[in-house]
Amino acid sequence: MSPSISAEDKLDYVKSKIGEYPDFPKEGILFRDIFGALTDAKACVYLRDLLVDHIRESAPEAEIIVGLDSRGFLFNLLIATELGLGCAPIRKKGKLAGEVVSVEYKLEYGSDTFELQKSAIKPGQKVVVVDDLLATGGSLVAANELIHKVGGVVVESLVVMELVGLQGRKRLDGKVHSLIKY
Amino acid sequence: MSPSISAEDKLDYVKSKIGEYPDFPKEGILFRDIFGALTDAKACVYLRDLLVDHIRESAPEAEIIVGLDSRGFLFNLLIATELGLGCAPIRKKGKLAGEVVSVEYKLEYGSDTFELQKSAIKPGQKVVVVDDLLATGGSLVAANELIHKVGGVVVESLVVMELVGLQGRKRLDGKVHSLIKY
Repeated sequence: MSPSISAEDKLDYVKSKIGEYPDFPKEGILFRDIFGALTDAKACVYLRDLLVDHIRESAPEAEIIVGLDSRGFLFNLLIATELGLGCAPIRKKGKLAGEVVSVEYKLEYGSDTFELQKSAIKPGQKVVVVDDLLATGGSLVAANELIHKVGGVVVESLVVMELVGLQGRKRLDGKVHSLIKY
Repeated sequence: MSPSISAEDKLDYVKSKIGEYPDFPKEGILFRDIFGALTDAKACVYLRDLLVDHIRESAPEAEIIVGLDSRGFLFNLLIATELGLGCAPIRKKGKLAGEVVSVEYKLEYGSDTFELQKSAIKPGQKVVVVDDLLATGGSLVAANELIHKVGGVVVESLVVMELVGLQGRKRLDGKVHSLIKY
C-alpha cells in the first residue's frame, strides 16, 4: 500500500503516535494507548501493513486469526480479510452463544474467565492469536489453552506492544512477535 | 476485490453464515451471531466490501470511524484503513485513558456508562459510528451524545444487523444504515 516507506519508518511513525498516560489505570503504571495512534489515518494503514506483512512472512500456514476481547477485535477481522482467512473471538464469560470451552485466568486481583466457541476452530487448524498488548501473558496463555481444548494449533501470538521486562512471552506456545517493545 | 459478485449476492452469502441461537442470552431471545459468519473467509471479505462500499457512497465526507465496545472494534479500524481515515473507540467506563466525556444509558435491567476520549474527535469532525447490531438503539444513542459532547457531527450510523421491529433507528441522528434487516 505504501511501497516507498520502509517497515522501519512505518514502525517509527506508529510508535510516535502511541499515547502515554502515567498512573493509569492506577498509580505507578505507565499506560501505552494504542488508540492514540488509531485516530491518525497514516498510522492505521502502517499498522495494518506491519501486522499483515509479518504474518505473511512468519506464519504463511495460518488458517484462522483469533482476537482477544476487546482490543484484539481491532485486528483479527482486519488481518483475516487481508490474508483471505476467517477469524474468531475469545470473549469474557457469558458473551458467546452456543457450545463454548472456558478457562479461568488470574488477574492482578482476582480472576476472569475467557471462552471460545467450539465451532470456531476445526481440529488441527493453524491459529494466529492477536492482541494489542503482551504484559505478563495471562490472557494469551488462557487463549492458548482454549485453542488447545478445541484441537487447534497456535502457530503464533502477535501483539502490537510488549512489556518485555514482564517476560510474558516465555509462557506462550509457538512463535511470539511484538511490533513495539518497551 | 470481488468484482464479479454483486452486492446482493455478497449480502445473501454473509446472511447465510450468520448464526442463530434461540433463547440466548435468555429465554425468548433469538440471538443472531455475527461471529458465525466471520469464521468464513469469503464472508469476511464480502462483509468488508459491503461496509466500505456503503460508506464510500453514502458518507464520502466521513473523517473518522467510531466503533462501539466491543464488536464495533471488528469494523472501525478495518473501514478506516480501507478509506484512508482514522478511527476511535467508545468504551465502557474506566477503560479509556486521559480526559473523557461520559454518558449513562439504560439497559434492559439497570444502566451502563460509555466513554469517549476528548482528544479522539476534533470539533466539527464528521463521524461514522459502526456496530454489529441495532436493536432498541440505546448504545448508539449514547454514542451520538458522546460525539456531540466533544463537538463531532454524526453523519451516519452503520450496523451489520438491525432488529427493525424495535424501531431503534428513530432515535438516531443522521443517516442510519443496516446491511441485514430482521
